[in-house]
Amino acid sequence: MTYEQLYENIRNQKSFLCVGLDSDVNKIPQHLKENEEDPVFAFNRAIIDATAPYCIAYKPNLAFYECNGVKGLLSYERTLEYIRHNWPKHFIIADAKRGDIGNTSKMYARAFFEEQNVDALTVAPYMGEDSVTPFLEYEGKWVIMLALTSNKGSLDFQLTEDDKGVRLFEKVLQTSLQWGGKENMMYVVGATRGNLFEDVRRIVPEHFLLVPGVGAQGGSLEEVCRFGMNKHCGLIVNSSRGIIFADNSACFAEAAMTKARLLQQQMEEQLRIFGII
Amino acid sequence: MTYEQLYENIRNQKSFLCVGLDSDVNKIPQHLKENEEDPVFAFNRAIIDATAPYCIAYKPNLAFYECNGVKGLLSYERTLEYIRHNWPKHFIIADAKRGDIGNTSKMYARAFFEEQNVDALTVAPYMGEDSVTPFLEYEGKWVIMLALTSNKGSLDFQLTEDDKGVRLFEKVLQTSLQWGGKENMMYVVGATRGNLFEDVRRIVPEHFLLVPGVGAQGGSLEEVCRFGMNKHCGLIVNSSRGIIFADNSACFAEAAMTKARLLQQQMEEQLRIFGII
Repeated sequence: MTYEQLYENIRNQKSFLCVGLDSDVNKIPQHLKENEEDPVFAFNRAIIDATAPYCIAYKPNLAFYECNGVKGLLSYERTLEYIRHNWPKHFIIADAKRGDIGNTSKMYARAFFEEQNVDALTVAPYMGEDSVTPFLEYEGKWVIMLALTSNKGSLDFQLTEDDKGVRLFEKVLQTSLQWGGKENMMYVVGATRGNLFEDVRRIVPEHFLLVPGVGAQGGSLEEVCRFGMNKHCGLIVNSSRGIIFADNSACFAEAAMTKARLLQQQMEEQLRIFGII
Repeated sequence: MTYEQLYENIRNQKSFLCVGLDSDVNKIPQHLKENEEDPVFAFNRAIIDATAPYCIAYKPNLAFYECNGVKGLLSYERTLEYIRHNWPKHFIIADAKRGDIGNTSKMYARAFFEEQNVDALTVAPYMGEDSVTPFLEYEGKWVIMLALTSNKGSLDFQLTEDDKGVRLFEKVLQTSLQWGGKENMMYVVGATRGNLFEDVRRIVPEHFLLVPGVGAQGGSLEEVCRFGMNKHCGLIVNSSRGIIFADNSACFAEAAMTKARLLQQQMEEQLRIFGII
């Protein structure tokens, strides 16, 4: 998917919502576990059909599938196929935070961009250039690099200043600009980081940012937009638990729909404020 | 496996070799692809039987299995089972370089330490404490954290000095000492880093280090030992391509055995020099 297509989808859907499919088998409704052969896939399918009109992207996190072994991988693959077949305009992000020496990253690129055919993959920056560039060789595919994450541990290293006062996340942004551009790279910037978005935008004014941390982790959508939105929106805001586990009864999909619609409405308002729609 | 058991295995085997099972299906001998139902597993089984007397650990890198989808995951799981059943004293490292927010790292911990039951997992440090500590809650299991990797891209961020002159890899070592100790943490330090081993050893004198980069990547075993060995050996030196792809004919396992034995002999010499055996 191109930058332009993504922007167009955002305007058409009046939303920049990504629904995180962190579908922990221990948290999905009991009746699915009793009646379905692949309860995780059945859960995802219902969540997808309920939320697709209100979002532009899905982001399965691999951890929640890998912990179920081969069965989990099958649930994951069925989910990808279901999205591609039924909601082909939705952007699919594999949240896997991969990264290895060049020779090995090439294999991960093959796994995610050929075998699974997702649109984007989250990548960890610690190992530097050759751990990232193999992912950039695929036309229409995206690397989403960790820059400033939403968790408490992000304070341990990401804000460390070098001898010139440049913080690590800023160095990651600056350095990676030499590897790819706004057409094939995005960055993870947590919603809990408030005004640090301004510092991110100074370095990457036009890139898309993938923003986790709205909802369960406490970030504010309004603040994210104030400091992070650009003239092509430039934001994909993710909510996982806040949507998919809004309710644990037979009505789980309706509850997810309500939550997704509410976020979509708030996003529509922001898109109007910024003159994007 | 405990620190003591690992040390004992090293003394008994007179080796601190880890064989990296980076079993790229495109590089394994043709006859296996033609005659075997699961050629990657057949390849691994032959490599394992040929090299087990000369090594103390195996390290499958997940990228080479994930790129084959469910089939790849099955090859990987069969390989783990084969090692555990036939060579139960060998230490199994899942080289996956995982790491995510706490809630998600917990799922990865379940995947690797419960579902797959490996001994150790490589973990990326960028997301800090809560991305790492869930892996430390398993008795007898190990986190192997990226510190100073062997690839060219390691220069991009890992050597960045903070305002006090502490380099990022040193900060990673120092900070993580608060999360775990030598009984449940190791660090990746590339063999290509030569005398930087001294700086690593100043911070973690007693920990085991997992050392890639001997062989195909050009690191020297002697230099690694001179600067990195401690009184419990403290080194697990990995070779992947240099052993498993030493030969591409029907004699591939014999060639791998020869390479592994040669490394074992060099290691035995070093263990004697340092008075460990």
